[in-house]
Amino acid sequence: MKVIKGNINSVKGFKSYGSAVGLKKRKKDMAIILSDVMCNSAGCFTTNVVKAAPVYWDMENVSKDIKGIVINSGNANACTGEQGLKDTEEMASILGSLAGVEKENILVCSTGVIGVNLPMEKVREGIKSTFKGLDSSFEAGLSSAEAIMTTDTYSKSVAVEVELDGKVVRIGAMAKGSGMINPNMATMLCFITTDCAISKKMLSKALKDCVKDTFNMISVDGDMSTNDTVLCLANGLAENEEIVEENESYNKFKDALFFVNKTLAIACADDGEGATKLIEANVKGAKTEDDAKKIALSVVSSSLLKAAMFGEDANWGRVLCAMGYSGAKFDPMQVSINFRSENGVISLMEKGSPIVFDEELASKVLSAHNIYIDMVLSDGDFEATAWGCDLTYDYVKINGDYRS
Amino acid sequence: MKVIKGNINSVKGFKSYGSAVGLKKRKKDMAIILSDVMCNSAGCFTTNVVKAAPVYWDMENVSKDIKGIVINSGNANACTGEQGLKDTEEMASILGSLAGVEKENILVCSTGVIGVNLPMEKVREGIKSTFKGLDSSFEAGLSSAEAIMTTDTYSKSVAVEVELDGKVVRIGAMAKGSGMINPNMATMLCFITTDCAISKKMLSKALKDCVKDTFNMISVDGDMSTNDTVLCLANGLAENEEIVEENESYNKFKDALFFVNKTLAIACADDGEGATKLIEANVKGAKTEDDAKKIALSVVSSSLLKAAMFGEDANWGRVLCAMGYSGAKFDPMQVSINFRSENGVISLMEKGSPIVFDEELASKVLSAHNIYIDMVLSDGDFEATAWGCDLTYDYVKINGDYRS
Repeated sequence: MKVIKGNINSVKGFKSYGSAVGLKKRKKDMAIILSDVMCNSAGCFTTNVVKAAPVYWDMENVSKDIKGIVINSGNANACTGEQGLKDTEEMASILGSLAGVEKENILVCSTGVIGVNLPMEKVREGIKSTFKGLDSSFEAGLSSAEAIMTTDTYSKSVAVEVELDGKVVRIGAMAKGSGMINPNMATMLCFITTDCAISKKMLSKALKDCVKDTFNMISVDGDMSTNDTVLCLANGLAENEEIVEENESYNKFKDALFFVNKTLAIACADDGEGATKLIEANVKGAKTEDDAKKIALSVVSSSLLKAAMFGEDANWGRVLCAMGYSGAKFDPMQVSINFRSENGVISLMEKGSPIVFDEELASKVLSAHNIYIDMVLSDGDFEATAWGCDLTYDYVKINGDYRS
Repeated sequence: MKVIKGNINSVKGFKSYGSAVGLKKRKKDMAIILSDVMCNSAGCFTTNVVKAAPVYWDMENVSKDIKGIVINSGNANACTGEQGLKDTEEMASILGSLAGVEKENILVCSTGVIGVNLPMEKVREGIKSTFKGLDSSFEAGLSSAEAIMTTDTYSKSVAVEVELDGKVVRIGAMAKGSGMINPNMATMLCFITTDCAISKKMLSKALKDCVKDTFNMISVDGDMSTNDTVLCLANGLAENEEIVEENESYNKFKDALFFVNKTLAIACADDGEGATKLIEANVKGAKTEDDAKKIALSVVSSSLLKAAMFGEDANWGRVLCAMGYSGAKFDPMQVSINFRSENGVISLMEKGSPIVFDEELASKVLSAHNIYIDMVLSDGDFEATAWGCDLTYDYVKINGDYRS
């Protein structure tokens, strides 16, 4: 697998474009992704009981042949009643007409403010004007990645290629994250394009497997959104032999897809609202995979720990405390904990007993941007990693008055 | 039931005192509560897998005859290994000697920094000097309530009296809360004294019933501490007929105990770290009691909603969103939501559809200190209430550098 400079447009047969259609003040707020030919597609969706209108649409249609996706930011079309469902359908219908397919061949995503109906006049005109800009250039792909941002501070794209059956297969992707990121992908949108020839069933399996260890293992603030969606479109234009079972090609493709998902998931955690640090929690020696995941996620989700990381305070008791209320079973008297960064390692607890540590070294370790928290248990052989960010003044500021 | 000006010392046969013994910088940090005679006692404890040393001690001894409690703030004696257990036992032993009882007749509580062993020389001297100050005055009771504080901004006491069998029965209590408050009472300590004659079994039943709808329904930041404890001592000196079953006296006593618990639980939420607002979430029409509780707690625990309340922003979509990921089952298309305060009411969602509301009135409603969020479902007859606070710059500040 090779990482290439690229984005969703780096893949054969895909065009996209992002533009400003007036849903946000003076910023890009609409993107369209279109494939030259029909795609097999797969999706992972929020598990929130309250789902945004486009999530219902995509869950219903993702297993059909898909030609493209229309995405708007600035308004989540969530908690918008019957009108919201009609508006989503109309968005699909407009892009379907322009692309010469049925509305059911189009997927729809929205992100932004909850509880306000879409300004459909702007949306209608916006889809038409954005459609005109569709292009396969790197710049057009970049404009799409920018158009899906809400409180993100930078756009997030990645592209890779692998060789399958002597053919070059590419995967491109973009994501937006920021607030409400939590296991099960709260207010996170990710769009993946690939020219790999792969059956719907295998694509769906690969995507679900990747998402559970990447996007479902990040947390910004513990809130899970109504809109979270990961969509993958595969148009088959790479002309590799279609993957229909778990063979070597499947594994190579899945490894590349995993890399793409992991890269963007970490970027979403890193760019969490107001974040100044990326926190990676590593758990080893857990009794079950579920226990390992619960512990890792509990630690990166703890408001107390997140605030301590912002303050660069080696308050490791908060790590053990968050492990303790994670719901996982373990023996606290066997736990060892390290804080680690590019500046060094400090050992804080060894087999359940606190270790007197050098505060000066601790400050140096915690002054880095990427902080690794290593937790070793003695209960089994399972491990897990979760990613999060610190809790800062800016998080409160951003969310204290999001709508204005 | 009558509320009286008082505290834990307003109850016949109880003395207490709080003093500064050097665990904190220049602040009171140790309290002792002592009864003239042995008490029946009951306790509710943190469900965190990682429990502080004194929690283990109290869980083991709470069902024995209890003479008193020694409490220190400034150090939680949590994550302190074998030494922590020995230190707790020694604290019980010292107070036991002074009070002329066995160490097993003494309960111990600690709150403060995690992961640092207690400075036992200061603790030993501190117990002796605090013991000398024991007194039944209102002022001595107040000093105890002050000595258990950590980041609390005010001390929390309450006292009530009821008449049982023609005898006046009193209940006094003090609590400390602040950070890490969450369902199952994270870093919350509450001490209740009563002269009611009541069996251990009935006291335990009454306390558990009260705690589940009060202290277990508050959340400050979603973290659950290693130390949370509610202890109730009943010395029987009121000379009412001993309560041994669920009769009229039991119900009157339990109602009074509930009032005491609720008053202090709300005070803990109100005084959450950095909080400027108290948030009360009311759920009606839920399918089960468990669903109602899950929804109410999820709403007061949402970082996004808490930040919006700080900003006085009527971002009600975050209410519905938090309801949706609470784990409770309900029909989102039947939900109605109001924001309410002493300044008025705004209806935001009616049967699943958003309502256009007056932003000016919304600002006025949300400018109050106490904000009520009313959620009505159409799934059943169960209801629940939870309390929390807003998320502010000061929360981040307090927790960014707690240890220094």
